Amino acid sequence: MNDKIDFILSRRSCRSFSSKKVSDNDVRTLLDCALNAPSGMNRQSWSFVALTDRTKIQKLSQAVAKALGRGSDYNFYNPDVFIITTNDKESAFRQVDNACAIQNIYLAAEALQLGCVWINQLNDCYDDKAVRALLTEFGIPENHGVYGCAAIGYPAEDFSPREKNITASARIIN
Amino acid sequence: MNDKIDFILSRRSCRSFSSKKVSDNDVRTLLDCALNAPSGMNRQSWSFVALTDRTKIQKLSQAVAKALGRGSDYNFYNPDVFIITTNDKESAFRQVDNACAIQNIYLAAEALQLGCVWINQLNDCYDDKAVRALLTEFGIPENHGVYGCAAIGYPAEDFSPREKNITASARIIN
Repeated sequence: MNDKIDFILSRRSCRSFSSKKVSDNDVRTLLDCALNAPSGMNRQSWSFVALTDRTKIQKLSQAVAKALGRGSDYNFYNPDVFIITTNDKESAFRQVDNACAIQNIYLAAEALQLGCVWINQLNDCYDDKAVRALLTEFGIPENHGVYGCAAIGYPAEDFSPREKNITASARIIN
Repeated sequence: MNDKIDFILSRRSCRSFSSKKVSDNDVRTLLDCALNAPSGMNRQSWSFVALTDRTKIQKLSQAVAKALGRGSDYNFYNPDVFIITTNDKESAFRQVDNACAIQNIYLAAEALQLGCVWINQLNDCYDDKAVRALLTEFGIPENHGVYGCAAIGYPAEDFSPREKNITASARIIN
Protein backbone atom coordinates (compact mmCIF):
# COMPACT_ATOMS: atom_id res chain seq x y z
CA MET A 1 0.00 0.00 0.00
CA ASN A 2 1.09 3.55 -0.74
CA ASP A 3 2.24 5.15 2.54
CA LYS A 4 1.25 8.65 1.37
CA ILE A 5 -2.29 7.45 0.70
CA ASP A 6 -2.38 5.79 4.12
CA PHE A 7 -1.21 9.07 5.60
CA ILE A 8 -4.01 11.05 3.89
CA LEU A 9 -6.65 8.46 4.84
CA SER A 10 -5.69 8.22 8.50
CA ARG A 11 -5.56 11.92 9.47
CA ARG A 12 -8.04 12.72 12.24
CA SER A 13 -8.74 15.93 14.18
CA CYS A 14 -7.36 16.35 17.69
CA ARG A 15 -9.15 18.44 20.33
CA SER A 16 -7.01 17.66 23.37
CA PHE A 17 -3.47 18.96 23.67
CA SER A 18 -0.54 18.43 26.03
CA SER A 19 1.46 21.28 27.54
CA LYS A 20 4.56 20.43 25.44
CA LYS A 21 5.90 23.33 23.35
CA VAL A 22 5.90 23.08 19.56
CA SER A 23 9.25 24.24 18.11
CA ASP A 24 9.40 27.38 15.96
CA ASN A 25 10.96 25.19 13.30
CA ASP A 26 7.83 23.03 13.16
CA VAL A 27 5.57 26.10 13.14
CA ARG A 28 7.57 27.44 10.18
CA THR A 29 7.04 24.11 8.37
CA LEU A 30 3.28 24.32 8.96
CA LEU A 31 3.25 27.84 7.51
CA ASP A 32 5.34 26.77 4.49
CA CYS A 33 2.84 24.00 3.75
CA ALA A 34 0.01 26.56 3.94
CA LEU A 35 1.83 28.90 1.55
CA ASN A 36 2.31 26.04 -0.91
CA ALA A 37 -1.38 25.15 -1.16
CA PRO A 38 -3.09 25.99 -4.46
CA SER A 39 -5.07 29.23 -4.67
CA GLY A 40 -7.64 30.37 -7.23
CA MET A 41 -5.77 31.76 -10.26
CA ASN A 42 -2.63 31.53 -8.09
CA ARG A 43 -3.53 34.91 -6.53
CA GLN A 44 -2.27 33.99 -3.04
CA SER A 45 -4.30 36.82 -1.56
CA TRP A 46 -4.16 35.08 1.81
CA SER A 47 -1.89 35.62 4.79
CA PHE A 48 -1.05 33.48 7.80
CA VAL A 49 -0.22 34.42 11.37
CA ALA A 50 0.91 31.80 13.89
CA LEU A 51 0.55 32.68 17.57
CA THR A 52 2.86 30.65 19.80
CA ASP A 53 2.31 32.53 23.07
CA ARG A 54 -0.49 30.88 25.03
CA THR A 55 -1.31 34.16 26.76
CA LYS A 56 -1.92 35.87 23.41
CA ILE A 57 -3.95 32.87 22.19
CA GLN A 58 -6.17 32.98 25.28
CA LYS A 59 -6.59 36.75 25.04
CA LEU A 60 -7.97 36.18 21.55
CA SER A 61 -10.21 33.28 22.63
CA GLN A 62 -11.69 35.47 25.38
CA ALA A 63 -12.43 38.29 22.92
CA VAL A 64 -14.11 35.78 20.59
CA ALA A 65 -16.10 34.27 23.48
CA LYS A 66 -17.36 37.73 24.43
CA ALA A 67 -18.21 38.69 20.83
CA LEU A 68 -20.23 35.50 20.32
CA GLY A 69 -21.76 35.26 23.81
CA ARG A 70 -19.90 32.04 24.70
CA GLY A 71 -18.84 31.15 28.24
CA SER A 72 -15.42 32.21 29.53
CA ASP A 73 -14.33 28.54 29.39
CA TYR A 74 -14.21 28.90 25.60
CA ASN A 75 -10.50 28.44 24.82
CA PHE A 76 -9.96 27.07 21.28
CA TYR A 77 -9.19 23.73 23.08
CA ASN A 78 -6.20 25.40 24.73
CA PRO A 79 -3.61 24.76 22.01
CA ASP A 80 0.09 25.56 22.04
CA VAL A 81 -0.07 27.19 18.59
CA PHE A 82 -2.92 29.00 16.89
CA ILE A 83 -2.72 29.76 13.17
CA ILE A 84 -5.06 32.48 11.89
CA THR A 85 -5.66 32.29 8.13
CA THR A 86 -6.85 35.52 6.56
CA ASN A 87 -7.73 36.71 3.08
CA ASP A 88 -8.90 39.81 1.25
CA LYS A 89 -12.60 40.22 2.13
CA GLU A 90 -13.25 40.93 -1.58
CA SER A 91 -11.58 37.78 -2.90
CA ALA A 92 -14.05 35.41 -4.55
CA PHE A 93 -11.80 32.56 -3.47
CA ARG A 94 -11.27 33.59 0.17
CA GLN A 95 -13.10 30.64 1.67
CA VAL A 96 -11.91 27.83 -0.60
CA ASP A 97 -8.32 29.06 -0.82
CA ASN A 98 -7.98 29.18 2.94
CA ALA A 99 -9.66 25.79 3.31
CA CYS A 100 -7.02 24.24 1.01
CA ALA A 101 -4.29 25.89 3.07
CA ILE A 102 -5.81 24.59 6.31
CA GLN A 103 -6.04 21.08 4.87
CA ASN A 104 -2.29 21.32 4.15
CA ILE A 105 -1.69 22.51 7.73
CA TYR A 106 -3.78 19.57 9.01
CA LEU A 107 -1.71 17.05 7.05
CA ALA A 108 1.60 18.74 7.86
CA ALA A 109 0.69 18.63 11.58
CA GLU A 110 0.05 14.89 11.22
CA ALA A 111 3.44 14.48 9.52
CA LEU A 112 5.09 16.24 12.48
CA GLN A 113 3.22 14.09 15.05
CA LEU A 114 1.17 17.11 16.08
CA GLY A 115 -2.58 17.29 16.58
CA CYS A 116 -4.76 19.89 14.90
CA VAL A 117 -8.37 21.01 14.77
CA TRP A 118 -10.22 23.59 12.68
CA ILE A 119 -11.60 26.56 14.64
CA ASN A 120 -14.29 28.45 12.76
CA GLN A 121 -15.56 31.03 15.28
CA LEU A 122 -13.30 33.88 14.15
CA ASN A 123 -15.14 33.84 10.79
CA ASP A 124 -18.24 35.13 12.56
CA CYS A 125 -16.69 37.94 14.57
CA TYR A 126 -13.47 39.20 12.95
CA ASP A 127 -14.90 42.70 12.71
CA ASP A 128 -16.07 42.81 16.31
CA LYS A 129 -14.27 45.80 17.85
CA ALA A 130 -12.24 43.96 20.50
CA VAL A 131 -11.43 41.05 18.17
CA ARG A 132 -10.33 43.42 15.40
CA ALA A 133 -8.12 45.34 17.84
CA LEU A 134 -6.22 42.11 18.56
CA LEU A 135 -6.01 41.19 14.86
CA THR A 136 -4.56 44.65 14.20
CA GLU A 137 -2.06 44.09 17.02
CA PHE A 138 -1.06 40.88 15.19
CA GLY A 139 -0.48 42.85 11.97
CA ILE A 140 -3.55 41.61 10.09
CA PRO A 141 -4.74 44.30 7.66
CA GLU A 142 -8.19 45.87 8.00
CA ASN A 143 -9.29 44.62 4.55
CA HIS A 144 -8.67 41.00 5.55
CA GLY A 145 -11.25 38.72 7.13
CA VAL A 146 -10.51 35.47 8.95
CA TYR A 147 -11.49 32.33 7.04
CA GLY A 148 -10.62 29.44 9.31
CA CYS A 149 -8.07 28.93 12.06
CA ALA A 150 -6.06 25.92 13.16
CA ALA A 151 -5.48 25.00 16.82
CA ILE A 152 -2.32 22.92 17.08
CA GLY A 153 -0.28 21.11 19.71
CA TYR A 154 1.10 17.78 20.78
CA PRO A 155 -1.85 15.48 21.45
CA ALA A 156 -2.68 14.93 25.13
CA GLU A 157 -1.52 11.58 26.49
CA ASP A 158 -5.05 10.25 26.70
CA PHE A 159 -5.99 11.40 23.18
CA SER A 160 -7.27 8.78 20.79
CA PRO A 161 -8.70 9.81 17.45
CA ARG A 162 -12.42 9.27 16.85
CA GLU A 163 -13.44 6.41 14.57
CA LYS A 164 -14.73 8.02 11.37
CA ASN A 165 -18.03 6.62 10.18
CA ILE A 166 -18.25 7.47 6.47
CA THR A 167 -21.85 8.38 5.66
CA ALA A 168 -21.53 10.10 2.26
CA SER A 169 -21.62 8.59 -1.20
CA ALA A 170 -18.81 8.48 -3.77
CA ARG A 171 -19.48 6.74 -7.07
CA ILE A 172 -17.56 5.94 -10.22
CA ILE A 173 -19.51 6.34 -13.47
CA ASN A 174 -17.78 4.45 -16.29
CA MET B 1 13.82 15.94 6.11
CA ASN B 2 10.33 14.55 6.57
CA ASP B 3 9.22 12.93 3.28
CA LYS B 4 5.55 13.65 3.96
CA ILE B 5 6.32 17.35 4.36
CA ASP B 6 8.33 17.28 1.13
CA PHE B 7 5.35 15.64 -0.53
CA ILE B 8 2.96 18.37 0.67
CA LEU B 9 5.37 21.16 -0.30
CA SER B 10 6.08 19.87 -3.80
CA ARG B 11 2.55 19.26 -5.11
CA ARG B 12 1.80 21.38 -8.18
CA SER B 13 -1.22 21.57 -10.50
CA CYS B 14 -1.12 19.80 -13.87
CA ARG B 15 -3.07 21.10 -16.87
CA SER B 16 -1.77 18.76 -19.58
CA PHE B 17 -2.69 15.08 -19.61
CA SER B 18 -1.63 12.00 -21.58
CA SER B 19 -4.12 9.57 -23.15
CA LYS B 20 -3.21 6.80 -20.66
CA LYS B 21 -6.18 5.38 -18.72
CA VAL B 22 -6.33 5.78 -14.93
CA SER B 23 -7.32 2.50 -13.25
CA ASP B 24 -10.65 2.22 -11.44
CA ASN B 25 -8.63 1.17 -8.42
CA ASP B 26 -6.80 4.50 -8.39
CA VAL B 27 -10.06 6.43 -8.92
CA ARG B 28 -11.50 4.58 -5.93
CA THR B 29 -8.47 5.63 -3.86
CA LEU B 30 -8.96 9.28 -4.85
CA LEU B 31 -12.60 9.09 -3.77
CA ASP B 32 -11.67 7.42 -0.47
CA CYS B 33 -9.25 10.27 0.28
CA ALA B 34 -12.03 12.78 -0.46
CA LEU B 35 -14.43 10.95 1.86
CA ASN B 36 -11.82 11.03 4.64
CA ALA B 37 -11.30 14.80 4.58
CA PRO B 38 -12.67 16.73 7.57
CA SER B 39 -16.08 18.37 7.25
CA GLY B 40 -17.76 21.04 9.38
CA MET B 41 -19.27 19.34 12.46
CA ASN B 42 -18.50 16.03 10.68
CA ARG B 43 -21.75 16.41 8.72
CA GLN B 44 -20.33 14.92 5.48
CA SER B 45 -23.19 16.49 3.53
CA TRP B 46 -21.11 16.19 0.35
CA SER B 47 -21.08 13.61 -2.40
CA PHE B 48 -18.54 12.72 -5.08
CA VAL B 49 -19.01 11.46 -8.61
CA ALA B 50 -16.04 10.37 -10.73
CA LEU B 51 -16.55 10.28 -14.49
CA THR B 52 -14.08 7.98 -16.26
CA ASP B 53 -15.64 7.99 -19.73
CA ARG B 54 -14.05 10.76 -21.80
CA THR B 55 -17.20 11.05 -23.94
CA LYS B 56 -19.30 11.80 -20.85
CA ILE B 57 -16.66 14.25 -19.57
CA GLN B 58 -16.64 16.13 -22.85
CA LYS B 59 -20.44 16.16 -23.05
CA LEU B 60 -20.37 17.94 -19.70
CA SER B 61 -17.60 20.35 -20.72
CA GLN B 62 -19.62 21.32 -23.80
CA ALA B 63 -22.75 21.99 -21.74
CA VAL B 64 -20.67 24.15 -19.37
CA ALA B 65 -19.06 26.00 -22.29
CA LYS B 66 -22.51 26.78 -23.71
CA ALA B 67 -23.92 27.87 -20.33
CA LEU B 68 -21.02 30.25 -19.73
CA GLY B 69 -20.53 31.46 -23.32
CA ARG B 70 -17.10 29.87 -23.68
CA GLY B 71 -15.72 28.56 -26.99
CA SER B 72 -16.30 24.94 -27.99
CA ASP B 73 -12.59 24.26 -27.38
CA TYR B 74 -13.33 24.48 -23.65
CA ASN B 75 -12.62 20.93 -22.45
CA PHE B 76 -11.57 20.90 -18.76
CA TYR B 77 -8.00 20.32 -20.11
CA ASN B 78 -9.21 17.02 -21.59
CA PRO B 79 -8.61 14.80 -18.54
CA ASP B 80 -9.06 11.04 -18.26
CA VAL B 81 -11.06 11.36 -15.03
CA PHE B 82 -13.30 14.16 -13.82
CA ILE B 83 -14.45 14.26 -10.20
CA ILE B 84 -17.50 16.39 -9.45
CA THR B 85 -17.78 17.37 -5.79
CA THR B 86 -21.26 18.36 -4.67
CA ASN B 87 -22.90 19.44 -1.45
CA ASP B 88 -26.26 20.45 -0.05
CA LYS B 89 -26.93 23.99 -1.35
CA GLU B 90 -28.10 24.90 2.16
CA SER B 91 -24.97 23.72 3.97
CA ALA B 92 -23.04 26.57 5.56
CA PHE B 93 -19.87 24.55 5.01
CA ARG B 94 -20.45 23.56 1.36
CA GLN B 95 -17.54 25.55 -0.02
CA VAL B 96 -14.89 24.88 2.62
CA ASP B 97 -15.80 21.22 3.11
CA ASN B 98 -15.47 20.50 -0.59
CA ALA B 99 -12.23 22.50 -0.81
CA CYS B 100 -10.71 20.27 1.90
CA ALA B 101 -11.86 17.18 0.00
CA ILE B 102 -10.35 18.50 -3.25
CA GLN B 103 -7.07 19.24 -1.50
CA ASN B 104 -7.04 15.58 -0.40
CA ILE B 105 -7.76 14.51 -4.01
CA TYR B 106 -4.91 16.76 -5.20
CA LEU B 107 -2.44 15.17 -2.80
CA ALA B 108 -3.71 11.63 -3.42
CA ALA B 109 -3.28 12.19 -7.17
CA GLU B 110 0.32 13.25 -6.51
CA ALA B 111 0.87 10.10 -4.42
CA LEU B 112 -0.39 7.99 -7.35
CA GLN B 113 1.83 9.82 -9.89
CA LEU B 114 -1.24 11.44 -11.42
CA GLY B 115 -1.72 15.07 -12.35
CA CYS B 116 -4.68 17.13 -11.16
CA VAL B 117 -6.15 20.60 -11.53
CA TRP B 118 -9.11 22.35 -9.91
CA ILE B 119 -11.95 23.23 -12.31
CA ASN B 120 -14.29 25.87 -10.91
CA GLN B 121 -16.70 26.62 -13.80
CA LEU B 122 -19.42 24.18 -12.72
CA ASN B 123 -19.92 26.32 -9.59
CA ASP B 124 -21.30 29.09 -11.79
CA CYS B 125 -23.74 27.05 -13.89
CA TYR B 126 -24.81 23.90 -12.07
CA ASP B 127 -28.45 24.97 -12.32
CA ASP B 128 -28.28 25.77 -16.03
CA LYS B 129 -30.92 23.52 -17.63
CA ALA B 130 -28.60 21.45 -19.87
CA VAL B 131 -25.90 21.18 -17.20
CA ARG B 132 -28.43 20.11 -14.56
CA ALA B 133 -29.88 17.49 -16.94
CA LEU B 134 -26.41 15.87 -17.12
CA LEU B 135 -25.87 16.13 -13.35
CA THR B 136 -29.24 14.39 -12.87
CA GLU B 137 -28.15 11.69 -15.33
CA PHE B 138 -25.06 11.22 -13.11
CA GLY B 139 -27.30 10.75 -10.06
CA ILE B 140 -26.58 14.11 -8.42
CA PRO B 141 -29.62 15.23 -6.40
CA GLU B 142 -31.47 18.44 -7.26
CA ASN B 143 -30.71 20.00 -3.84
CA HIS B 144 -26.97 19.68 -4.39
CA GLY B 145 -24.79 22.32 -6.02
CA VAL B 146 -21.30 21.76 -7.43
CA TYR B 147 -18.49 23.25 -5.32
CA GLY B 148 -15.30 22.47 -7.19
CA CYS B 149 -14.25 19.73 -9.61
CA ALA B 150 -10.95 17.95 -10.17
CA ALA B 151 -9.61 17.12 -13.64
CA ILE B 152 -7.20 14.18 -13.36
CA GLY B 153 -4.95 12.08 -15.56
CA TYR B 154 -1.40 10.97 -16.14
CA PRO B 155 0.67 14.07 -16.90
CA ALA B 156 1.53 14.59 -20.58
CA GLU B 157 5.12 13.64 -21.47
CA ASP B 158 6.11 17.27 -21.94
CA PHE B 159 4.51 18.41 -18.66
CA SER B 160 6.70 20.18 -16.18
CA PRO B 161 5.20 21.83 -13.11
CA ARG B 162 5.32 25.62 -12.87
CA GLU B 163 7.79 27.14 -10.44
CA LYS B 164 5.75 28.57 -7.59
CA ASN B 165 6.67 32.10 -6.63
CA ILE B 166 5.42 32.60 -3.07
CA THR B 167 4.09 36.14 -2.75
CA ALA B 168 2.06 35.97 0.47
CA SER B 169 3.18 36.57 4.04
CA ALA B 170 3.28 34.05 6.88
CA ARG B 171 4.56 35.20 10.25
CA ILE B 172 5.21 33.72 13.65
CA ILE B 173 4.29 35.93 16.62
CA ASN B 174 6.02 34.70 19.77
